[in-house]
Amino acid sequence: MTAYKDLSKEELLELHDSLSKEFDAIKEKGLKLDMSRGKPSQAQLDLSMGMMDVLSSESNLFCAEGVDCRNYGVLDGIKEAKQLFADMMEVPKDNIIIFGNSSLNVMYDTVARAMTHGILGSTPWAKLDKVKFLCPVPGYDRHFAITEFFGIEMIPVPMTENGPDMDIVEKYVENDPAVKGIWCVPKYSNPQGITYSDETVHRFARLNPAAEDFRIFWDNAYGIHHLYEDKQDYLVEIFMECKREGHPDMVYKFGSTSKISFPGSGIAAIAGSDANMAEIRKMMSVQTIGHDKVNQLRHVKYFKNIHGMVTHMKKHAEILRPKFEAVLNCLDRELTGLEIGTWIRPRGGYFISFDSMEGCAKAIVAKAKEAGLIMTPAGATFPYGKDPKDSNIRIAPSFPTPEELELATKVFVLSVKLVSVEKLLEAFN
Amino acid sequence: MTAYKDLSKEELLELHDSLSKEFDAIKEKGLKLDMSRGKPSQAQLDLSMGMMDVLSSESNLFCAEGVDCRNYGVLDGIKEAKQLFADMMEVPKDNIIIFGNSSLNVMYDTVARAMTHGILGSTPWAKLDKVKFLCPVPGYDRHFAITEFFGIEMIPVPMTENGPDMDIVEKYVENDPAVKGIWCVPKYSNPQGITYSDETVHRFARLNPAAEDFRIFWDNAYGIHHLYEDKQDYLVEIFMECKREGHPDMVYKFGSTSKISFPGSGIAAIAGSDANMAEIRKMMSVQTIGHDKVNQLRHVKYFKNIHGMVTHMKKHAEILRPKFEAVLNCLDRELTGLEIGTWIRPRGGYFISFDSMEGCAKAIVAKAKEAGLIMTPAGATFPYGKDPKDSNIRIAPSFPTPEELELATKVFVLSVKLVSVEKLLEAFN
Repeated sequence: MTAYKDLSKEELLELHDSLSKEFDAIKEKGLKLDMSRGKPSQAQLDLSMGMMDVLSSESNLFCAEGVDCRNYGVLDGIKEAKQLFADMMEVPKDNIIIFGNSSLNVMYDTVARAMTHGILGSTPWAKLDKVKFLCPVPGYDRHFAITEFFGIEMIPVPMTENGPDMDIVEKYVENDPAVKGIWCVPKYSNPQGITYSDETVHRFARLNPAAEDFRIFWDNAYGIHHLYEDKQDYLVEIFMECKREGHPDMVYKFGSTSKISFPGSGIAAIAGSDANMAEIRKMMSVQTIGHDKVNQLRHVKYFKNIHGMVTHMKKHAEILRPKFEAVLNCLDRELTGLEIGTWIRPRGGYFISFDSMEGCAKAIVAKAKEAGLIMTPAGATFPYGKDPKDSNIRIAPSFPTPEELELATKVFVLSVKLVSVEKLLEAFN
Repeated sequence: MTAYKDLSKEELLELHDSLSKEFDAIKEKGLKLDMSRGKPSQAQLDLSMGMMDVLSSESNLFCAEGVDCRNYGVLDGIKEAKQLFADMMEVPKDNIIIFGNSSLNVMYDTVARAMTHGILGSTPWAKLDKVKFLCPVPGYDRHFAITEFFGIEMIPVPMTENGPDMDIVEKYVENDPAVKGIWCVPKYSNPQGITYSDETVHRFARLNPAAEDFRIFWDNAYGIHHLYEDKQDYLVEIFMECKREGHPDMVYKFGSTSKISFPGSGIAAIAGSDANMAEIRKMMSVQTIGHDKVNQLRHVKYFKNIHGMVTHMKKHAEILRPKFEAVLNCLDRELTGLEIGTWIRPRGGYFISFDSMEGCAKAIVAKAKEAGLIMTPAGATFPYGKDPKDSNIRIAPSFPTPEELELATKVFVLSVKLVSVEKLLEAFN
C-alpha cells in the first residue's frame, strides 16, 4: 500500500476517477443505512423479551421490604434493585439511588439542581458569573448538550490512550474555582472505546479541586459491555479511591440498564457518598414520590442478580462482536497504510472512533450521506459541535444488520478515500 | 344536638370525662391506621392487574408509527398514548407530551426550566429578584413544596365553593408582574373536592397577566375520578377557553394515570399550546432521549381507548364510594349540630376536607396519633405548612380497608370532640 500523500497528482486524479465510479455505482443502489447512534439492534432487544413474562396478573408485586410496588412510595428504589445496581456499579447498596428509565435524565437533573441550589451548601451555579466544565474530547454529544443548555463554559481536554490528559485536568481543577465538573465515560469511552488507566483514576481521586463543589460526572455507561470474554478492560472503582484519598463527595457515578435490557424502558441510577446521596434524596423528594418500582421489580425478577446480568451481556457481545469486527476488518483491509485515517480497536462499548486527515470529517459525513449512509454529524463529539481539526467521526455499528453493516462500511471507506484524495489534490492547486 | 359552644363549663367537663374514657378504650386497642395520603387501596390496584398480561415475550412491541418501543427514540410519546391522553385531558393529541410515571415530576421540571431558562424567551426566574405564585388554599402540599424549593414566594388565595376567589386572583395576576403562576387542582380539588365553576374557568381564561410568562398550572389530577355515575361535576376545558380569549399560551395542563392504573408505574403528560409544547420538546431533548414507551404501549393495549378508561374508573368508584360515604356518614352522624367542624361532601377525587374550630387542627391530628391514627399533618394544605386558622385537616379515605376506615373515623371524630371541648374549656379559665 502506498500512502495517499505519496501519490503524484496524476495518480491521485486517476484514483479519484476510479473511486468516483465505484461511489456512483453504490449511490445508485439507493441505500438507507444508519451508523449514527448507539442503538441496540432488534436482535439485541429480542434477548430481553423474557422480561415481558416475569410479571403477570398472578404475580405478587410486593418487594422484599414488603412494599406494594404498584403503589406510591419508596423514593430511592426498592432494596433488591439497589443491590443489583450496587453490584453493577461496584458501590455499597446504600450509596445508590434508583431513578427512571434514563441516566441522561439523572445527569441533567444533577446539573439542574446544582444550577438552582448548589451542592452541599455551595452557591447555586446560576448565581455565579462563570461556571466551567472540562470535556474530554472526543466525547459524548449529549453530555455536552446538557452543559451547553445551562450556559456552562466547556473546556475541551484531549483524550490520550489512558484517558483524559490528566496534566491539563489537574491544572484546571486545582487552580480555577469556576471549574465545577468534568464529563467522563471512563470505560470503553464514547466514542473511542478507551478505558481510563489505573494511574488516571488514581490521579482523579487525588485531585484537590479549587471549587468545593467540583464533581466528577462519572458516566460508566459501558461498565459491563464487553465485546470479548477473554479480553476485557478493567477500570479501578473511583468512589472508593476518592474516599481513600479523603474526597468521598467528589464523584457522582451514573449507570443504567439502557443497553442491557431495553434502551427506552430500563432503569437508571446515581451512586455516590452518603452526603451526596442524602442531599439528592432530600431534593428529589420535592420532584417525585418515587420512580417506577414495578419496572425495578421486573428487572430484578428477570436478571435475578449481577451474575444473571453478566451472563446476559455475553449474549449482547455475541451479536455486537461480529459487527465491530466487520467494520474494523474493513477499515484494516481498506485503509491500512494509506495514511488517511486512524482508528482504535475497542474491547467493548458501542463505538468506533475514526480520525480522518485534518479538515475532512465534515466532508466525509456529507459524502456518505450522498450514498444513503447516515453518520453522527462530524463535530458532534466536541463541545459546541466544533472539532478544531475537523477530523473525528463516530461510527456506531450496533444497529444495522450484518448485511447492512457490510455495505455501510464500504460506503464509509469509499467516502473517506474520496474526500482524502480531494483534500490532497487541493495541495496541487 | 346542642352545639358545644352552648354547653356550660360543667357540661363540658362531664363530656370531656366521658369522651376521654371512650378515647382511652380505643387507644388501648393499639391501632395502626393511616388516613394521611391519597393512596389507592390494594383492591383498587388489583383492578389493573390485567395490565401485567397485555405484553408478553410473544408480543409485537412496535407502535402504530412503526417504531420499536423497546429502543431509543420518540421524544414526546407514541401516537396512540397521545391519543388516549388527548381524550382524557380534552385537548388535541398534537398538544400533548407524554412523560414518565409522575405528573408531579413534570410540574417540577416545568418550574425548574422556567427558573433557569424562562418561558418563551422571558427572563429566567432565577435571575429575578422576586417570583410569586398564587396558591389557592387549602391546597396540595406537594405543589407548595415545589414552589418553596425554588424560593418562589407563595401567596395564599382562599378557595370558595366555586374555586379560588377570582377577585383576588385577578388583582394579583393583572397588577403584579412578579406573579408568574398559580397552582390549580380544578376538579374535585385536593383537599376539598371542589370543582371550579364555569364562571371561574372563564375568568381564568380572560386574565390579562402583568407578566408575559405567567402560567396557570392546571393539575387536573382527578379529571375522570368520579364517585357517582349519576352525580358528576363538569369542568369547562380551559385550554380552548384560553385560546378563544387570545391567550393560548397561558395554561399548562397536567395529567397522569397514577390513580387510574398504578400510582408508581403509570404515565404522565403535559398539554398546552403549540408554542409551549414546542419549547418543552426542544428543552426536554437535552434531558432525555425519551420516556418509557413500553409502558405507554402497555397502557394503550390495556385501556384501548378513553371509553375503556372511563369504564375502568367506574370500578375504582365502586371501591371508593362506600369509603367516602362511611367517613361522611360518620361525620354527619357524630358531628352535625355540634358546631365544632364543617366538611364538604365531594362527588369525586381522593379527599374530604375538614375544618375544625379555629386553633384546633394541630391538636386534633396529635390526638388522633395518640390512638394510632396517622392523618396528614395539620397545616400541610397551606403554603409553608402554615394554616393561619389552624383549622384545616385533610382526610384521605382511600387506602384503609372498610373495617379500618370505620375505626379510623371513630378515632378522628373522638379526637375532634375532645380537642374542641378542651378548646372551649380554655375560655372558662
